[in-house]
Amino acid sequence: MQHNPRGAGAVIALDLGGTKIAGAVMDPQAGILASGGLPTPATQGADAVLDAMAKLVADLRSRARCGIDGLGLGAAGVIDPATARVLSATDTISGWAGTDLAGQMFQRTGLETRAVNDVHAHGLGEARFGAGRGAREVLLLAVGTGIGGSHLIDGQAHTGAHRVAGHMGHIDSPLAAGIPCSCGRTGHLEAIAAGPAIHRHYLRLGGNPEAVDTRAVAKLAESGDKLAVTALRTGALAAGRAAGSLANILDPELVIISGGMAHAGPAWWQWLREGYAASAIDSLQGTQLVPAQLGTTAAFYGAASLFWTPERTTP
Amino acid sequence: MQHNPRGAGAVIALDLGGTKIAGAVMDPQAGILASGGLPTPATQGADAVLDAMAKLVADLRSRARCGIDGLGLGAAGVIDPATARVLSATDTISGWAGTDLAGQMFQRTGLETRAVNDVHAHGLGEARFGAGRGAREVLLLAVGTGIGGSHLIDGQAHTGAHRVAGHMGHIDSPLAAGIPCSCGRTGHLEAIAAGPAIHRHYLRLGGNPEAVDTRAVAKLAESGDKLAVTALRTGALAAGRAAGSLANILDPELVIISGGMAHAGPAWWQWLREGYAASAIDSLQGTQLVPAQLGTTAAFYGAASLFWTPERTTP
Repeated sequence: MQHNPRGAGAVIALDLGGTKIAGAVMDPQAGILASGGLPTPATQGADAVLDAMAKLVADLRSRARCGIDGLGLGAAGVIDPATARVLSATDTISGWAGTDLAGQMFQRTGLETRAVNDVHAHGLGEARFGAGRGAREVLLLAVGTGIGGSHLIDGQAHTGAHRVAGHMGHIDSPLAAGIPCSCGRTGHLEAIAAGPAIHRHYLRLGGNPEAVDTRAVAKLAESGDKLAVTALRTGALAAGRAAGSLANILDPELVIISGGMAHAGPAWWQWLREGYAASAIDSLQGTQLVPAQLGTTAAFYGAASLFWTPERTTP
Repeated sequence: MQHNPRGAGAVIALDLGGTKIAGAVMDPQAGILASGGLPTPATQGADAVLDAMAKLVADLRSRARCGIDGLGLGAAGVIDPATARVLSATDTISGWAGTDLAGQMFQRTGLETRAVNDVHAHGLGEARFGAGRGAREVLLLAVGTGIGGSHLIDGQAHTGAHRVAGHMGHIDSPLAAGIPCSCGRTGHLEAIAAGPAIHRHYLRLGGNPEAVDTRAVAKLAESGDKLAVTALRTGALAAGRAAGSLANILDPELVIISGGMAHAGPAWWQWLREGYAASAIDSLQGTQLVPAQLGTTAAFYGAASLFWTPERTTP
């Protein structure tokens, strides 16, 4: 097996979320060599989570038929990629803030450990190995249960001065005016365009309470239900307008749309593109909005790529 | 005179706008050694503008008491900083699009020529030599006749895949819903928060037509005129909310506010900060919004700095 001459060879990548730890052995040429997963013992605190991560690493390692050069993490929380430390985090994993991922995981596995936030890991994977392959500047907009994003330049995620850049769900949306957002403010994109927001919007409009989730609303919209169409269309337009505003600021080569809503069907995509056209300036009307290609494996590619020197894709 | 050991010495910097060409001889230690200006012969076409620029260069050169190592331009239009070519432009200067600034100015002056867009030049100057001195990541928001901006990382302006990044005036604003924008879309920040937009808003509200410009509206607001207060306050809140949204996306170390509206007085600044607080996520509530320090000379510093290697300001 030929290894990347400019970076490490096979590495283990973990995607750590609040409910699940997914992991894979990643090879820069062959991709995923093995994969597995465990529930996140989130309520048991940081040590239990680190132990579970180490257990998954040991399991993957025993199944890999090659040497492992490092451990790449895409982790929940605000992560400093320079030190792999958790700068801050919500209460999803108790005691997570402050965790020294590099030190703790090296202690448990003997592997050099690098980490980024999970959304940035996802973005890195799509930008370098998925829908953004060959592009130098990529904007990823993940529209799912929440909305996040990542701006990737030359295979690097821009993480900002306090490492919290990429909160694309918390950009003002004219279609969300006055609606409370998960962050405590009002009027943000996530409050109207995320999956649960679309469901809540449908119910606010007087929709049938028997439609218990976003999937049910999307199904009703497909069958022509007017309230469901309004809720789904408003969310898609808002996401599209936000993508247009973001393009006006960042001017990416292309915009990758990932997350659950990217699977909401052709009508959602049409409204998304309509929203984009309504906000992007003339010279950016041609920028493509494309679906993500790697699904949940994007985070594996992104976390592993922390060990793989990017090839500069300058034209 | 001690020159920057890591870059060029004195250079000539020009700030080229649609009505005026301003220029200065810039020294990396001593700053502005001499300055001057000429009207832009905008209607006479690109050649006439290039000739006028060369005339100003010759004038400044004859007054400089030092060697000149290069010519830095902050120029109207979409500029490719890699080639100093005008990629596209509005009709302000006829025939400007396509102009090879490096080739044309070298021919006329014998000086190596580098260029960026004028707003990015402005941002570079403020980030490296003005209000952003010492900061690694800076967002500049210029709120004047129009609204533009620049995102500066390690002394470099991010210009994007098509070199049109920084159209911060064309981010969606919930306070501009439905209002036509200069770009042909509706609902953008510039349509409610730029100087002329505030004047138009005041008139739409039924304000006194004898208030002929933004300055008059600001004066009326100061004296407590309710319609004037509403127009000015809405503009400031919109600019502040946009700064908050932009912080959520970019996470700069600080936000520099420049342009004419930055001189609109303490009430405008208070509403600006109110708007920021209403959109920025918790972890970015502490990010400072500060006024620009260099005024119109910022573009000289920025254009000149294209020849001065940035010192990395990593903490």
